Amino acid sequence: MGGFKVAEEIRIALDAMGGDHAPGEIVKGAVHAAMHHDGMRIILVGRQEEVRRALEEETQAAKADASALPGWQDRISIRDAREVISTSEHPVDAIMHKRDSSMVVALTMVKKGEADAVASAGNSGALMVGGQGIVGRVRGVQRPPFGTLIPTKRGVLLLVDSGANVDARPQFLAQWAKLGTIYMQSSLGIKSPKVGIVNIGAEEEKGNQLVKDTYPLLKKMHEDGEINFGGSCEARDIPEGEFDVVVCDGFVGNVVLKMYEGVAKVLLSEMKAGLLSSTRSKIGALLIKPALKKTLKKFDSSQYGGAPIIGLTGLVVKMHGSSKAVEVERAMDQCVQYREQRIADRIQDYAAGEKKKQDAARAAEKGV
Amino acid sequence: MGGFKVAEEIRIALDAMGGDHAPGEIVKGAVHAAMHHDGMRIILVGRQEEVRRALEEETQAAKADASALPGWQDRISIRDAREVISTSEHPVDAIMHKRDSSMVVALTMVKKGEADAVASAGNSGALMVGGQGIVGRVRGVQRPPFGTLIPTKRGVLLLVDSGANVDARPQFLAQWAKLGTIYMQSSLGIKSPKVGIVNIGAEEEKGNQLVKDTYPLLKKMHEDGEINFGGSCEARDIPEGEFDVVVCDGFVGNVVLKMYEGVAKVLLSEMKAGLLSSTRSKIGALLIKPALKKTLKKFDSSQYGGAPIIGLTGLVVKMHGSSKAVEVERAMDQCVQYREQRIADRIQDYAAGEKKKQDAARAAEKGV
Repeated sequence: MGGFKVAEEIRIALDAMGGDHAPGEIVKGAVHAAMHHDGMRIILVGRQEEVRRALEEETQAAKADASALPGWQDRISIRDAREVISTSEHPVDAIMHKRDSSMVVALTMVKKGEADAVASAGNSGALMVGGQGIVGRVRGVQRPPFGTLIPTKRGVLLLVDSGANVDARPQFLAQWAKLGTIYMQSSLGIKSPKVGIVNIGAEEEKGNQLVKDTYPLLKKMHEDGEINFGGSCEARDIPEGEFDVVVCDGFVGNVVLKMYEGVAKVLLSEMKAGLLSSTRSKIGALLIKPALKKTLKKFDSSQYGGAPIIGLTGLVVKMHGSSKAVEVERAMDQCVQYREQRIADRIQDYAAGEKKKQDAARAAEKGV
Repeated sequence: MGGFKVAEEIRIALDAMGGDHAPGEIVKGAVHAAMHHDGMRIILVGRQEEVRRALEEETQAAKADASALPGWQDRISIRDAREVISTSEHPVDAIMHKRDSSMVVALTMVKKGEADAVASAGNSGALMVGGQGIVGRVRGVQRPPFGTLIPTKRGVLLLVDSGANVDARPQFLAQWAKLGTIYMQSSLGIKSPKVGIVNIGAEEEKGNQLVKDTYPLLKKMHEDGEINFGGSCEARDIPEGEFDVVVCDGFVGNVVLKMYEGVAKVLLSEMKAGLLSSTRSKIGALLIKPALKKTLKKFDSSQYGGAPIIGLTGLVVKMHGSSKAVEVERAMDQCVQYREQRIADRIQDYAAGEKKKQDAARAAEKGV
């Protein structure tokens, strides 16, 4: 915690107005993050009177917490932004016309070098448009995807794209396979991440047109040693953790993500209701509580924070629209890790190589 | 059980060679069905020596069961078929060339009036091709879908298409909404089933191109009183049971189905492992067992049997490739119910109306 480390702190512009529980839970999450995690400064972006009120409330509530890092309050500040982009707005219109919205202001801070990262639980489409338009796309990356870490039986896997590009082309999926590989190598240290493509059967000839067209591209990349392609991944293999990286279009990815969430939620609530239905099972429930909690924690997606947009020149993290303080805190911590892992640098290196290849191919075509 | 009822028994041609556990589990399921359920005759179709061996084994094992219906053995017979279609074969090739396969022979029995229904756990694509090519499509139905009943918090919903048409058009989805409505009205007596379209957000402007193009068609059908359209269904609303019928292309439907299966399976196995990790939780586990079993049974998809192909002139039921005896038994019973509910008749009536409309539109175009 010396002065030496301060220079390395990541400055996160946090969209305080985005999401179902903004600004209350967003601010609460920021306070918890600053109290318990090192290495970050958080700038809350939004209507300053509302944000300040929420911040004061949380600061009061936090005073009792003896585990808080010293000086945490100095690491949270507010940047005023008068407008708010809602979930139902058209992404391009919102980014173009709401220049003083919390989301646009936060993204612009990264562009101007006033912040190192943006996190938002607001309109996903707008964040994607603004991420590319304001922060900027790495040259050579065709369509930046959302990458979401999903808990599995064996640990965790990366799902790309989890919701950004709903009508994708084979070339996009092929590139996501490579981006995902770099991500998992950098973040989890997996040397040769096993890549799968979401499909409706294990056989190569199965699938819709997109999958059939993408499959040979992935096979070629595997032969060239670019990725470790393990073939088709049936949706039921995802929770089993058979793969490290799973690619699909953003529509399918979003369905995967939300089925995960929905099935787990319903199953657990039904189980809970079942356990409270008799005295016998109520006593049993008390006895199994600690063991159950451990299992559930493993499958709690809030543990894995937000979904970064992979392939931008800056760090932009999308948090779930329904994020509460715990998810926000986790996403803040993830920003610190993401920076330490230098994933963005490695993607820039890869993309620069891609760009060169593309240019060389074009030059060759022209008969140079 | 008098002679009077025999005439009403449904004759089911059961593909004894299809699926991961054929012929053993298929035959076992058939035996259990005949022993415990009324109203059916089962013809096991497959290599007779293998099927006979399995049948003799199961008959031996069944002798101890006092609850067996009298004369159940007379309601099972064998039809020889020498070839087997594997999962990896190309559907059209398999149906065209393996004329003496268990699947083709079973389908042909329905065509010839020697059976009333076919059930198979074999190659889904081949069953779809053969169902349309051999049994026949109801005129007016464009693309018959698989309809699968999924357990939800509130009961059950019908997912169409759950895997047959992976690259679908808006007109197909619109028709599936109507077919699904008829299905749920007939089978579960729901007067006005709430129909949703699988989407990545609740707002109308969200979705991929297919969803955006289908949405207005469904709205129009709602305005015309043909269906009760409730809008977009996010994947997490599916287990919550917010809708009675959910439409999507067969690729997405298959992902939904297999995520359901996969998440539930992994979550439960992890929970079980967690419960056996300490003495305290082991004792608790014993106490909660009855309550837990009840909950799990509700979410056990084997309770809901197979997926009928909706819109054929005969009953063709696809069972899960990994079906065991319990799923087979359930699917056999489902055939009996399906027939009693006269769903096929109602679909024929609807399709005849559609056909007339199409013909009238064509005549009008010609300026008659």
